[in-house]
Amino acid sequence: MAKPCYFYGIHAIDALLQQRPLDALSLFVQPARDNDAQIAAIMDTAKANGVSIQTAQKDKLTQLCGSPQHQGVVLHARALNFADDSVLDELIENPRCLLLVLDQITDAHNLGACLRTAVAMGVDAVICPKHHAASLTPTVAKVAVGAAELIPVLSVTNLARTLGQIKQAGVFVFGTALDETAKPIFDADFSGKVALIMGSEGEGMRQLTTKNCDELVYIPMSGNQFGNLQSLNVSVATGMALYEINRQRQV
Amino acid sequence: MAKPCYFYGIHAIDALLQQRPLDALSLFVQPARDNDAQIAAIMDTAKANGVSIQTAQKDKLTQLCGSPQHQGVVLHARALNFADDSVLDELIENPRCLLLVLDQITDAHNLGACLRTAVAMGVDAVICPKHHAASLTPTVAKVAVGAAELIPVLSVTNLARTLGQIKQAGVFVFGTALDETAKPIFDADFSGKVALIMGSEGEGMRQLTTKNCDELVYIPMSGNQFGNLQSLNVSVATGMALYEINRQRQV
Repeated sequence: MAKPCYFYGIHAIDALLQQRPLDALSLFVQPARDNDAQIAAIMDTAKANGVSIQTAQKDKLTQLCGSPQHQGVVLHARALNFADDSVLDELIENPRCLLLVLDQITDAHNLGACLRTAVAMGVDAVICPKHHAASLTPTVAKVAVGAAELIPVLSVTNLARTLGQIKQAGVFVFGTALDETAKPIFDADFSGKVALIMGSEGEGMRQLTTKNCDELVYIPMSGNQFGNLQSLNVSVATGMALYEINRQRQV
Repeated sequence: MAKPCYFYGIHAIDALLQQRPLDALSLFVQPARDNDAQIAAIMDTAKANGVSIQTAQKDKLTQLCGSPQHQGVVLHARALNFADDSVLDELIENPRCLLLVLDQITDAHNLGACLRTAVAMGVDAVICPKHHAASLTPTVAKVAVGAAELIPVLSVTNLARTLGQIKQAGVFVFGTALDETAKPIFDADFSGKVALIMGSEGEGMRQLTTKNCDELVYIPMSGNQFGNLQSLNVSVATGMALYEINRQRQV
């Protein structure tokens, strides 16, 4: 069991209290914000679950959670855990299951942003390798504005093996390439069981991961009217790819 | 003329020195990073343009630019200016011109992220209203990893009037709505001259802006499998919309 930590931000705390109230230990609220409707609702939920509530000045909250982005509220709570690997077994029985694999995403902001987008775009679970990956810190939870509490995130020891397992269950594994050696993403067929792998911004997917893909796709970028600067943030690229999958499934 | 300020981050500084070397005043480099190839290239460009170079410790750099994200390099330089409104006249003669309008985007990180995506996806210019908008700060430049120096960003006093002007030139103005009262974005036709308006995350476009749209579109999100949390970061939503426009133009 990981040590308790300090979660912060209205949406992250609200989602934590909704999803796992028994993990909440104590709530710290900035006095001047007492009347804020969203914080009042958080305080009500905390009270209803027997969580102690204390007031704390803005600077004290910043010190507790290590960020000035707390929006007047910090929650001391048990850490957010990765989901058990066994949840995959059930998910991949769904003929339209959608899995997002984040290979080597080490930045907490990028992971949080990807989780937020994943929930909005109907991803069933997110899979990360155990090594060279961000963990589910309060910063991830803050950036994900609550999504980190909602979607199962798996941390797997051997990504290649996990990809092999889901392929055996009929999941088609798409890797995203950084260059145009692959197929334009809108020419791929995302109608069945899909796993989409996003690599890191600088280096893309690891070679071993690439080898395990059924198909490589890329997001076409535009002409060079401004010179050679062409790159996408990984959370934006993830959004584009998930948009394309949803588009194909809705058209 | 805005006061000089402290730019930071390798890509932001590299782009500044490439695009407007005469605006650079002095460069501060962290000693331990002297050998880094990218910083060495920046130092060469600075030297070639007669910019003074000083060493400064990590903490001093953080103090200068106000962020620990400087990557070992800070450049004192003239501020980045908005483009002159007159650049629009030429751009809208292009039968496939693509303009991105950011209504009420006040967060520097979101603006920077949108500029980065805009450059990668072939946007010709970005238009922001003068009020309730982020300015082109060093933080915007850092997050945009150089893109802020490459794309014209206009700051207009009266957004409704500017929209009227570009519509007269045959630009079709698409607004993005937050709900499903609009048309799914993949059903819209982005083949001609296009302006895409993105509103703020919390509130969307202002009513006056909405009134000036030729068509309202929305990005379909997925079923409610995780409850009612469904929202997209504005820079991710901008990426999805620009992806769709590019997809239609490339298919």
